[in-house]
Amino acid sequence: MPYQPLNERTVIDYVRSRPTIQSIIPHDVALSVKEVGDGNLNLVFAIATEEGPARSAVLKQALPYLRVAGTSWTLTRERMRFETQALLRYNELAPGLSPQVYDYDEEMSLVIMENLEDCEIMRKPLVARKRFPHVVDHISTFLARTLFFTSDLCLPGAQKKALLLKNINSDLCKLHEDFVYSNPFMDSPENRWNHLVEEEVRGVRNNGPLKVAISELKEHYMTHAQALLHGDLHTGSIMLNEHVTKVIDPEFAFFGPMGYDVGAVLENLVLNYLSHFAHTPNAEDRAEYQRYLLSMVRGIWNEFARKFDELWTGNTNGELPPVKFWNFPGGVEAFGEFRRRYIQQVLRDAAGHAGCKMLRRIMGIVSVWDLTSIQDLEKRAAVERLAIRIGSRWILERNHIQTVYDLISIVRDEGVEGSDRM
Amino acid sequence: MPYQPLNERTVIDYVRSRPTIQSIIPHDVALSVKEVGDGNLNLVFAIATEEGPARSAVLKQALPYLRVAGTSWTLTRERMRFETQALLRYNELAPGLSPQVYDYDEEMSLVIMENLEDCEIMRKPLVARKRFPHVVDHISTFLARTLFFTSDLCLPGAQKKALLLKNINSDLCKLHEDFVYSNPFMDSPENRWNHLVEEEVRGVRNNGPLKVAISELKEHYMTHAQALLHGDLHTGSIMLNEHVTKVIDPEFAFFGPMGYDVGAVLENLVLNYLSHFAHTPNAEDRAEYQRYLLSMVRGIWNEFARKFDELWTGNTNGELPPVKFWNFPGGVEAFGEFRRRYIQQVLRDAAGHAGCKMLRRIMGIVSVWDLTSIQDLEKRAAVERLAIRIGSRWILERNHIQTVYDLISIVRDEGVEGSDRM
Repeated sequence: MPYQPLNERTVIDYVRSRPTIQSIIPHDVALSVKEVGDGNLNLVFAIATEEGPARSAVLKQALPYLRVAGTSWTLTRERMRFETQALLRYNELAPGLSPQVYDYDEEMSLVIMENLEDCEIMRKPLVARKRFPHVVDHISTFLARTLFFTSDLCLPGAQKKALLLKNINSDLCKLHEDFVYSNPFMDSPENRWNHLVEEEVRGVRNNGPLKVAISELKEHYMTHAQALLHGDLHTGSIMLNEHVTKVIDPEFAFFGPMGYDVGAVLENLVLNYLSHFAHTPNAEDRAEYQRYLLSMVRGIWNEFARKFDELWTGNTNGELPPVKFWNFPGGVEAFGEFRRRYIQQVLRDAAGHAGCKMLRRIMGIVSVWDLTSIQDLEKRAAVERLAIRIGSRWILERNHIQTVYDLISIVRDEGVEGSDRM
Repeated sequence: MPYQPLNERTVIDYVRSRPTIQSIIPHDVALSVKEVGDGNLNLVFAIATEEGPARSAVLKQALPYLRVAGTSWTLTRERMRFETQALLRYNELAPGLSPQVYDYDEEMSLVIMENLEDCEIMRKPLVARKRFPHVVDHISTFLARTLFFTSDLCLPGAQKKALLLKNINSDLCKLHEDFVYSNPFMDSPENRWNHLVEEEVRGVRNNGPLKVAISELKEHYMTHAQALLHGDLHTGSIMLNEHVTKVIDPEFAFFGPMGYDVGAVLENLVLNYLSHFAHTPNAEDRAEYQRYLLSMVRGIWNEFARKFDELWTGNTNGELPPVKFWNFPGGVEAFGEFRRRYIQQVLRDAAGHAGCKMLRRIMGIVSVWDLTSIQDLEKRAAVERLAIRIGSRWILERNHIQTVYDLISIVRDEGVEGSDRM
């Protein structure tokens, strides 16, 4: 079928026409369809039957333009191929931590996959101060496995390059090149910000050392092809409940620096942490939940680092470097030192990229619901000022970061001050 | 014509069969052919006519195996596509600084190009203490233009990625991954070294901090896709005379760190510098020529840096970052600081990669003629010890390098000591 955007009516006929989906949604069962997309780039349809969740699915179709900007900002639809490739890889590398892919139609730029109706998008319950006992374990496993197994640490050189060749995702990378690293920090018509932080926004845009650092991070994003990233791993790309955690929406997947994915998770937890200065007026409740959020930051990083190191010592057939290279007196220690330095560099990179992403959420095209849901603009501004200070420090101090506690200290230092001002 | 390795006889029929080459070598002119290859990977035929250099050419054909290792080390022939692509790009980006391409036959894995019979391979005249008044200007121009114009500093993001997609040169990258960064530093059957430097070679292979640094440089080589490199820019890949300089043999072309190409040039000049402790017994002659060689190191770097910066300030349409990004009070200075730091990082990278390459020439599969032509093994060992010390220091001290004078100081410090010991 030649490409056409589906709607709630045409989805039914489309699903009926796909033989591969029959085992999930049989021909003779009545369907109901609802468009549930809240993203910027795609249509998302929930397909339900009377036979319950096991006989349901989600259909996601790429639009040829950026929704938030109307039809004027065109995008190629091949991103659905990148997304599906990535999901299939996750199904294999990190089983259970992303939706199962049922069907893929390249011409129609759509994928049909597991329905996650018993999960919610992580961002909202974090605002409601919910707790998830497995999320630290799940997300750290997801990061460690998807990043390690697609890197030169694990793959032979030619295999990594063959994978890279299939993941040159120019269009979606360009979105982040523009909207994470450039446009928010200069005059650009799509930028939006709270007028109460006008002074601070201008301060960022006029800060020479900060802008040099942001340029260096953009260079790093564009050139450091370390592993196959999710590419947009914010808390809107994680669905979960008390039992399961599912990473969705890897349409930005590309070969880039590991710190970009790790940083996206940390950044979103910090923005959520800050949002509670407005969302949670009760100081005790707030402090308690903010401690929980920082324990997630600490836990996700520390568990990631531990699991990544464990995968590395357990899989030494990769290119970087061969195991025989460490076969000398003191070689065990040297290999340990290489791993320690490598993983620490991922943390430093994560701090830098997270910082850029924190800033762009305040002064670029798209903010996050954690902040936009703060109705009182004064309160929102107070939170945004903290985000600007923390983001700027994570960027400027990234090369001095030793452990995740250094990052948390910056959040705590600035966070306390912020609390006093509310 | 299906692939078959040519020989001096079959080349003639082949050339007669190619219409595109008629304008250079007409049908009715008698041809003489001579195999002149001294490389490891290819056949090279000089094709002459009675009508002089203007009606002559060179035919280079890829072999499906690594010559030096016999037929057992197979290589794919697609490297001739990478070489031709790169030469065509040089013809456009750095006119006059590489041989003109006349014809290309993908099936036969061969290219026919300008004959450079009035030039010699740079390595040998440097041993003979010849001087070339234009080489600093030419090589610095070649480096600045080929690296700048293929980087994100100049190209829009999608264009750079499209170019990268055509230059995933897995096979030849694998050779350098193995033979520059891994095998020389561990037990590997193809390694060869002068038994008189056994202790120093073992010292390198057992040096933990050095091997951690070499691993970091291998990671950098494998993941930092900064610009389209020549990939093997030693003094055997440069042909020249008093008037012209031509870069040849870019079959290793791939997207990698700029410092790799720059470092290859500097490394080969330093190895040549050291070889004169053996080749030039007269102390005055030696000192004078060594000064000349160091002036080339200094000149090539400083001129490269100046020209690169000039190209950058003159071409600000690239992705990294857009010119509007610097449009703020102090933006001119910040942009200058970003350029300064970027170019300094290229120098640091060059030092590290050059160091690895210096070491591998002493203890890996292939040395350089500058050293192998030293007949007296004691004298050769003395030179090799210096190369090991300088290479190790360039690697370990790379992140403290401020200017090219720091690199030259290390050569001078170690060089003088070496001279005393001869």
